[in-house]
Amino acid sequence: MIILGIDPGIAIVGYGLIECKGNKFNAIEYGAITTDSKCPFPYRIKTIYEEMISLIDKYNPTDLAVEELFFNKNVKTAIKVGQARGVEILAAVNKGVNIYEYTPLQIKQGVVGYGRADKKQVQEMVKMLLNLKDIPKPDDVADALAVALCHGSSLKFKEMFRMR
Amino acid sequence: MIILGIDPGIAIVGYGLIECKGNKFNAIEYGAITTDSKCPFPYRIKTIYEEMISLIDKYNPTDLAVEELFFNKNVKTAIKVGQARGVEILAAVNKGVNIYEYTPLQIKQGVVGYGRADKKQVQEMVKMLLNLKDIPKPDDVADALAVALCHGSSLKFKEMFRMR
Repeated sequence: MIILGIDPGIAIVGYGLIECKGNKFNAIEYGAITTDSKCPFPYRIKTIYEEMISLIDKYNPTDLAVEELFFNKNVKTAIKVGQARGVEILAAVNKGVNIYEYTPLQIKQGVVGYGRADKKQVQEMVKMLLNLKDIPKPDDVADALAVALCHGSSLKFKEMFRMR
Repeated sequence: MIILGIDPGIAIVGYGLIECKGNKFNAIEYGAITTDSKCPFPYRIKTIYEEMISLIDKYNPTDLAVEELFFNKNVKTAIKVGQARGVEILAAVNKGVNIYEYTPLQIKQGVVGYGRADKKQVQEMVKMLLNLKDIPKPDDVADALAVALCHGSSLKFKEMFRMR
């Protein structure tokens, strides 16, 4: 099965497609959808929606894994990224893809094994688990692969204990 | 020309369609799209998107007028409503509708004539300008008609002074 992980954003939407085969994960494709801040906002979300639809059409993932948004301070940024995230999730649900949300803590636990792991450790594990030469850049891409891996691990875990 | 005004939300999306004819505004249709908080979030935004598309298909508005979001405290609410607002704007841009955003201050100025007007005054003006029997309920519907009227007034103003 194929999992699409995304790191929600408006200027940069990191994405990573992984395949789960038995105990192994393979990276199929990863990168970022980017939009220009000079573009009017409605066109930026239109671009994101269309590129999400293209990705889903091309790779046909079963599940979308996406990080929950947390902002401590900047409400303006929260609203902007929130609007983009809504569109990213809509693209998946409109294409019949199942949606799974994970907190940053769950992602760290799922990928590294403990919730206090730092960014660098998560990125190193992404590189190792997917057998990549380098840590994918920018961070948004590594984060997208991390949430996809987190979902993949949680599925494996459920399978192991026959949880549904 | 027909203007669709919306008051963005996730549980309740107020909408109001008005027609501008010369110096007059007529209400064509108004109401609310509602979603159940017990439903999974992706299905709530899917419902909103589909109902927005239906409204646009049925009434064929030229412009969408929408209030800018402001939240002082609750970042969680900001993210949730933000996600819904993204989807509401996407529906319009995907149907080729022009999008105009107004701040609460601009809406009060546009509808009542001064920016310190209170909610009740705005609602009374909506009722009067559209020649309605009662103030539309819930508040989200009156707010949606207010932002549509604000956009209509700004167009009239631009026309009057031949501003583009």
